[in-house]
Amino acid sequence: AAMASCGWARAVRGLLLDVSGVLYDSGADGGVPIAGSVEAVRRIKASGLKLQLCTNETQATRENFVRKLRALGFDISVSEVTAPAPAACRLLRERGLRPHLLVHDDLVPEFAEIDKTNPNCVVLGDAAENFTYENLNKAFRLLIGMEKPVLISLGKGRYYKETDGLKLDVGAYMKALEYACDVQAEVVGKPAKRFFESALAELGVPPEQAIMIGDDIMNDVGGAQQCGMRALQVRTGKYRPSDENHPEVKPDAYVNNLAEAVDIILQQL
Amino acid sequence: AAMASCGWARAVRGLLLDVSGVLYDSGADGGVPIAGSVEAVRRIKASGLKLQLCTNETQATRENFVRKLRALGFDISVSEVTAPAPAACRLLRERGLRPHLLVHDDLVPEFAEIDKTNPNCVVLGDAAENFTYENLNKAFRLLIGMEKPVLISLGKGRYYKETDGLKLDVGAYMKALEYACDVQAEVVGKPAKRFFESALAELGVPPEQAIMIGDDIMNDVGGAQQCGMRALQVRTGKYRPSDENHPEVKPDAYVNNLAEAVDIILQQL
Repeated sequence: AAMASCGWARAVRGLLLDVSGVLYDSGADGGVPIAGSVEAVRRIKASGLKLQLCTNETQATRENFVRKLRALGFDISVSEVTAPAPAACRLLRERGLRPHLLVHDDLVPEFAEIDKTNPNCVVLGDAAENFTYENLNKAFRLLIGMEKPVLISLGKGRYYKETDGLKLDVGAYMKALEYACDVQAEVVGKPAKRFFESALAELGVPPEQAIMIGDDIMNDVGGAQQCGMRALQVRTGKYRPSDENHPEVKPDAYVNNLAEAVDIILQQL
Repeated sequence: AAMASCGWARAVRGLLLDVSGVLYDSGADGGVPIAGSVEAVRRIKASGLKLQLCTNETQATRENFVRKLRALGFDISVSEVTAPAPAACRLLRERGLRPHLLVHDDLVPEFAEIDKTNPNCVVLGDAAENFTYENLNKAFRLLIGMEKPVLISLGKGRYYKETDGLKLDVGAYMKALEYACDVQAEVVGKPAKRFFESALAELGVPPEQAIMIGDDIMNDVGGAQQCGMRALQVRTGKYRPSDENHPEVKPDAYVNNLAEAVDIILQQL
């Protein structure tokens, strides 16, 4: 059935891969690779297809994120990762913005080169334990005190799953600050079009020759399709059967996992 | 000018008063009365007009709230206060709901008689210091685990001012949980129509013979007018001059403070 409808696999020259839920399942000990994914990444590279990871991960610098992936067996380098924090730094520089950061401690080094004195915007990431009442009030007071509040959010996920249970993601806190300040956040990361475009630029492939593979029907599949890419949804990670009846977004195909996607794509080359 | 347009003061038999920003300004030491307000409450009672306080206060039981007001000099009894927690308890009983509470410690006694085992809803108040990452995740997990999540929010304020600065109010956290769970909260408290109706029932006066006096253009003025009451906005508390250009809500009159409102109303009797 998958083979019968794989027009999406023709003319492909590069793949964008989501990470959590596609390459590995996150967890207390750094997570575990999803079966077949380490080998699938190796096969993509051996085939000559270009590869870029496109993640909304904001709990670590890209360097540490890549270190974790390599420890799990993935042959990935830092330049092969598109993540929200570096994209946010580009945006801050372009617009002369000086951020107050409400992010995870481990992400702070990504902003080392950015002027953070006398903030004129707030950058919100998945701050996890840093989402304290005091820190939220502080970010709020800075925003509401600005003549024109600027809130930049690294993603807008609702929640995610860790081994000790579900956690509110950055999008929930973004909504709290949006409401309190009557402002609309600018989202850096998936599903923002500009974020996919910078991932494609790093991939060096136009959208019509690229395929996005992800587990998130809205942020991965919907976002990539908005950019003119084809997009597959894997049935791993946060995939739920109800996604297949989504009222707005329909993937170009479903695959059981990354390994199956790679099987089908490589057969078409 | 105020006298020329005081048709709103005719036929009045009872007053609903907001508390914070009308009777007193809240602060570290329990707050300070707004000039003339203690005497204004006394004059209302001496006039034979009925009086009910209609507040979204959820950081204390009504008993403690009244104790604080009496210490500030206000002649108020518990039965003269309509507050969200008792209204929420009525709703919980009517619908057989067993709440998980994310509220201020000092509010918990209001729910003493309510069955809280095996929760099938979440009640959210202005939890202040209890708005921790852990407590928010816990409330979220309970909600998302329900077949049909029920979120009851004691008010939906954006923020409020204390002597040490602005604080996010319950509405911001309500929005975070609404987004994460894709659910709409049921708001108990102003501006909910049902809440004003129960305040009017306790006042014993129909809406067309009652006047609401508050500092909040949306929650006090807009909410009361939706119930068929007339409503005045005082220029104290959270009043801002820009309120006078509000695109949706127009008070029946502006008054400088409660004392002036009472002056005008009593002259009409």
